[in-house]
Amino acid sequence: MAHMLLFVVAPVSAVIALLFAFIFYKKVMTLSEGTEKMVEIAEAVRQGAKAYIKQQYKIVAIFFVVAALFLAFLAFVLKVQSTWTPFAFLTGGFFSGLAGFIGMITATLASARTTNQARESLGRALKVAFRSGAVMGLVVVGLALVDISLWFIVLHIWLKNSLVTTTVTMLSFGMGASLQALFARVGGGIYTKAADVGADLVGKVEQNIPEDDPRNPATIADNVGDNVGDVAGMGADLYESYAGSILASAALGASAILLKYKALLSRPDLEKMAFNAVILPMVIAGVGILASILGIFLVRTKEGASQKQLLGALGIGVNISSLLIIIGSLAAVYFLLPGHLGIFGSIVVGLVVGLIIGKSVEYYTSDSFKPTREVADKAKTGEATVIIGGMASGMISTSIPVIAVAVGILGAFAFAGGFKEGNIIMGLYGIGVAAVGMLSTLGITLATDAYGPIADNAGGNAEMSGLPKEVRKRTDALDSLGNTTAATGKGFAIGSAALTALALLAAYIEEVKMGMHHVGLDRLPKFLVEKINEIGAIDKISIESFMEIFKINLMNPKVIVGVFLGAMMAFMFSGLTMKAVGRAASRMVDEVRRQFREIKGIWDGTAKPDYQSCVQISIQGAQKEMILPSSLAIVVPIATGVVLGVSGVMGLLIGALGSGFILAIFMANAGGTWDNAKKYIEQGNLGGKGSPAHKAGVVGDTVGDPLKDTSGPSLNILIKLMSMISIVVAGLTVGFSIL
Amino acid sequence: MAHMLLFVVAPVSAVIALLFAFIFYKKVMTLSEGTEKMVEIAEAVRQGAKAYIKQQYKIVAIFFVVAALFLAFLAFVLKVQSTWTPFAFLTGGFFSGLAGFIGMITATLASARTTNQARESLGRALKVAFRSGAVMGLVVVGLALVDISLWFIVLHIWLKNSLVTTTVTMLSFGMGASLQALFARVGGGIYTKAADVGADLVGKVEQNIPEDDPRNPATIADNVGDNVGDVAGMGADLYESYAGSILASAALGASAILLKYKALLSRPDLEKMAFNAVILPMVIAGVGILASILGIFLVRTKEGASQKQLLGALGIGVNISSLLIIIGSLAAVYFLLPGHLGIFGSIVVGLVVGLIIGKSVEYYTSDSFKPTREVADKAKTGEATVIIGGMASGMISTSIPVIAVAVGILGAFAFAGGFKEGNIIMGLYGIGVAAVGMLSTLGITLATDAYGPIADNAGGNAEMSGLPKEVRKRTDALDSLGNTTAATGKGFAIGSAALTALALLAAYIEEVKMGMHHVGLDRLPKFLVEKINEIGAIDKISIESFMEIFKINLMNPKVIVGVFLGAMMAFMFSGLTMKAVGRAASRMVDEVRRQFREIKGIWDGTAKPDYQSCVQISIQGAQKEMILPSSLAIVVPIATGVVLGVSGVMGLLIGALGSGFILAIFMANAGGTWDNAKKYIEQGNLGGKGSPAHKAGVVGDTVGDPLKDTSGPSLNILIKLMSMISIVVAGLTVGFSIL
Repeated sequence: MAHMLLFVVAPVSAVIALLFAFIFYKKVMTLSEGTEKMVEIAEAVRQGAKAYIKQQYKIVAIFFVVAALFLAFLAFVLKVQSTWTPFAFLTGGFFSGLAGFIGMITATLASARTTNQARESLGRALKVAFRSGAVMGLVVVGLALVDISLWFIVLHIWLKNSLVTTTVTMLSFGMGASLQALFARVGGGIYTKAADVGADLVGKVEQNIPEDDPRNPATIADNVGDNVGDVAGMGADLYESYAGSILASAALGASAILLKYKALLSRPDLEKMAFNAVILPMVIAGVGILASILGIFLVRTKEGASQKQLLGALGIGVNISSLLIIIGSLAAVYFLLPGHLGIFGSIVVGLVVGLIIGKSVEYYTSDSFKPTREVADKAKTGEATVIIGGMASGMISTSIPVIAVAVGILGAFAFAGGFKEGNIIMGLYGIGVAAVGMLSTLGITLATDAYGPIADNAGGNAEMSGLPKEVRKRTDALDSLGNTTAATGKGFAIGSAALTALALLAAYIEEVKMGMHHVGLDRLPKFLVEKINEIGAIDKISIESFMEIFKINLMNPKVIVGVFLGAMMAFMFSGLTMKAVGRAASRMVDEVRRQFREIKGIWDGTAKPDYQSCVQISIQGAQKEMILPSSLAIVVPIATGVVLGVSGVMGLLIGALGSGFILAIFMANAGGTWDNAKKYIEQGNLGGKGSPAHKAGVVGDTVGDPLKDTSGPSLNILIKLMSMISIVVAGLTVGFSIL
Repeated sequence: MAHMLLFVVAPVSAVIALLFAFIFYKKVMTLSEGTEKMVEIAEAVRQGAKAYIKQQYKIVAIFFVVAALFLAFLAFVLKVQSTWTPFAFLTGGFFSGLAGFIGMITATLASARTTNQARESLGRALKVAFRSGAVMGLVVVGLALVDISLWFIVLHIWLKNSLVTTTVTMLSFGMGASLQALFARVGGGIYTKAADVGADLVGKVEQNIPEDDPRNPATIADNVGDNVGDVAGMGADLYESYAGSILASAALGASAILLKYKALLSRPDLEKMAFNAVILPMVIAGVGILASILGIFLVRTKEGASQKQLLGALGIGVNISSLLIIIGSLAAVYFLLPGHLGIFGSIVVGLVVGLIIGKSVEYYTSDSFKPTREVADKAKTGEATVIIGGMASGMISTSIPVIAVAVGILGAFAFAGGFKEGNIIMGLYGIGVAAVGMLSTLGITLATDAYGPIADNAGGNAEMSGLPKEVRKRTDALDSLGNTTAATGKGFAIGSAALTALALLAAYIEEVKMGMHHVGLDRLPKFLVEKINEIGAIDKISIESFMEIFKINLMNPKVIVGVFLGAMMAFMFSGLTMKAVGRAASRMVDEVRRQFREIKGIWDGTAKPDYQSCVQISIQGAQKEMILPSSLAIVVPIATGVVLGVSGVMGLLIGALGSGFILAIFMANAGGTWDNAKKYIEQGNLGGKGSPAHKAGVVGDTVGDPLKDTSGPSLNILIKLMSMISIVVAGLTVGFSIL
């Protein structure tokens, strides 16, 4: 029963996380929102955000109902997958949306409170913003682990499904989370960047008024955007990453143990070992939650602390959490899989890779280092050179993360023993667990990530409610503080996406085998039945034999075609989302110009701009534009499976991963570089604000906006969503593909 | 002997091509270069181009000597490959450089003559420009096929090497051509874009003087750039594509027949069939040359023909050549491989795919269609939106080419019978032959491609020598005419790169087997020797068993890591070349600004700018900047092979192909769209020249310049060069890899 006791760590930590989230929320709520004007503005942003989310969920609900009906058709009519699939799918979507929603509501409630605290001191403002960010961090990890634990308890412990059936079924809950996350990122990303680009192009460039100026009609929409894009979008995104890494490794854990030992000997403790391998990722996640909460409490600052001291305080919280996680993981591996201590090595590899990527992101995007300064310097010769320079720098910046992930893959695989004969799946399990390790401190790293947009909104509130300049200065300091810590968070998100996608690719194989069971030998293609009879049973098919049966090698034209299509999907999807931002932003520009032209009183202060119409334009733009790219993400993997079969799907997924992963880093870093190059100029370098170099810098920043906040982050989800969808419809693919 | 007679088609057509090239050259030379001023300018451009090429070849020679010594070390000391390798490598590089050089010299001699004829009529100017383009087209195909035929005669017919040894050894000549092409494209691309961007940024944007204004110090450098980048670079590039497709299919042909039939029965005509399969691509190329020459003669126009009639004349030439090639290929397949008529289907598939890609390039980049007009429209809201719009459009435009190539791969593979059991290599041979078919009309399509830069230079000459406006109008018409026909040429170049790279990937397997022979069983790793003993002999290893032995499947972490690294290489390489252009362009901007500032007489016409110093800056920039990216392209595949072994290399190549192919289309189309969007505005739309929209359009065009003329085209070569290098050092990889 010792292992059963250890499993309890997962649901209990999850509940504790939710509890602390509630406590932090209550504490933040006790603070005042400030002056009447501040409350009014905060309320307007809140209403805008709620209006958006309501619209968003309406459309998403339609997608979910259709998808659930399709899954029910596959499960109940075609009988190619488990009947639990549609339900697990729906809960994944629901909780992912809920996590984003709670995070967003908290953020909209926290921004004016942060502004109000910033009137006193920087330290106080940090505390509110950070605690509010922690609400989101803890809600994301808490809800994810609650959902995972519950399904595990219901399917395996209560209903006594086998471990493999349980974990593979649970992957459909990951599909729900991914789909919700994609909508949140794409819709929210289009919303926020349409408003941002529109507000900047007319306000900053044409009219020369500062950011967040209350005379700009798009300014409320812009602030709403931070909440729906950066907060709600990021929440759903990381919920998906977190849940995905745990689910993928759990699914591999069962098969890894069963395949490894069933062939060798019938150990009496086989079931127990498999159980332990399945719960290990959940237990690590649970330990990570506890470590995160402790870390959050360690972020304390003295009154009047300097910016450097604040950064130090944040660093202490994150570092101690990481240290605790390392110790906790060692204990978890020691108790659960004493024969596989190498797995601990995989976890450490994951953490180190995440750290390296984070540092490289910081190096390539912070204006303290050469790359961003060089890009800023290019602004002297105009818009064209700053754009070329930023693109080039973004492309070059992909090398360190890719090499780090490459070495990490080999390392995690090797530590888990994957290079030993017949042990591949154990190595892949190691890769999955490395991703879990990387994301285990999400509770605190997400807190350091999420407080950035809160500080950003707090600054907007200060500007619009006409508070003294020093308040805005403090919120700006908070915002720029967030950029440094956010780089680490980004590193973990990017790195874990690659590793999780790989684990999902391996889990796909298990799901195809499960699909064979559902389809049944009498309905499977003849060549496959012959191979299965040769091997003995579906469950005895090793990874190696699977590769041979389905010819998943690099000379199979179906694999090659899949790779091409997958790589193309990453570009196509990015192009569509960028175009969507451009289109929505154009409409915003027209509306802002119209208001400046028609509402004469804006300039002399006798009339207020119509903020609401800009909010509506962003909402409608986002809703309309998110449908095509999202549908593509759903349809392409299903169509590829039906036409090209299993080998084509695996090619598709690796192609999308290879290209998409790198394209995502390129977009994130190019966008970050331009953003900070502009800020560097605004600090008074190269001519400072208002100089031609500054104008060029603003153009660079605007070009980078959709790259770093819409297309780039959506790609990480796209990669995993395509895997998840392929996994869920694997039965259809293996039973009924054409070629 | 019938097949021997058919082989003769190849060398004979090659010689005929060179003969006609010489005739065309002589005819063009009989024409006058025009006024004294015109001759002077033409001479300055000629001198600049020669100075560049001299410098370029000096550095390239060093690389070639080092590489040849390294190959000699592998061949003579480590004894892991054929001793012919270093020599074949050198001739490939030499002939590729020679083809580019002759084309460039012809172009520089033709431009003033084209201008002079344009003083009379558009039709006359077309004739000179097109005939000069034909010189390059015929020199490229002639030299390539001469070189290939000679090596084949020496190695196989004279020295009696086996077919497999001969064809696999000849691939190292492809490596020489690819390396030369990479230098030509990267160096030439940096040169031309540094000059172009530098000239435009100061001339057009800052000083508001027209393109090619003689007061602009960078104007000669800009015109030199068209010759060294667009002509010499394109010549070496297409020489490499053309030779690569023939060599790759020839290498597959021998193994395809031998592996297919040796296992089944010992047919008495086996050697003959294998011989026929090897010479088929050469014969198709020979037939294509004859068809091209005929097509070139069909391009005739009446005096005073309209632009539409001229386009029609060009179309007739290309279409009739294509038709002849289809008939000729059917005959060649019928006589050489009567049992494999499906191969003819593969060739037709290749031609159709090239055509579809060409049409899609035209659709996405011509201002007659919606995408480019939409991008132009975005210029109304400024630089940022035009950049976002062009990037998005470029990314979306990748879908049709990728789907066309995907269907083409499956089609060419299927027609060649690849889906039949144990027949994979035959299918891959089909893919290679499809690429040969696609490029077989290169003689004429390259002529329609190469006359564009000649017309461009002719326009520059007209502007600088102060000829009447109508002359410039005629050369501009010629230039824009070239854009339409060039789109088709680009489609063929892009499509063939993907198919050739795949064929090279397959050829890599043959080369690894050859490498095993060279290394010898006593030096090979133990696991490999065991497998070989199991199968019986190295030559009996089928593609399927090869995949299993080296675990070249999608769950092997070494393959996955290879895919990541390959995809990253495409981005890294593009980033480095873009950055190089940016850096060299900045130096050019500084120099032009300095001259405008210091040489007072430029503006009142009392002093001439120092053209030579700008030429020198471009030369030095290009020479310095091309070394790092080119070295990377050489080192990475070798290092990957040494560290990760065969499976890592194959992953690397497919990763580079998947990402690089799509990135190349994105860059080419985004750049083309921006270019034509700007031209669309210049035609008087959206405010016309001098409007804010025009300024935004110029920025877009400038951003697109390095994408479409430096990084993009270099990527196509990079993909194949990495394959070629891996092929040549395969013996090292299989004998001495670490992991």
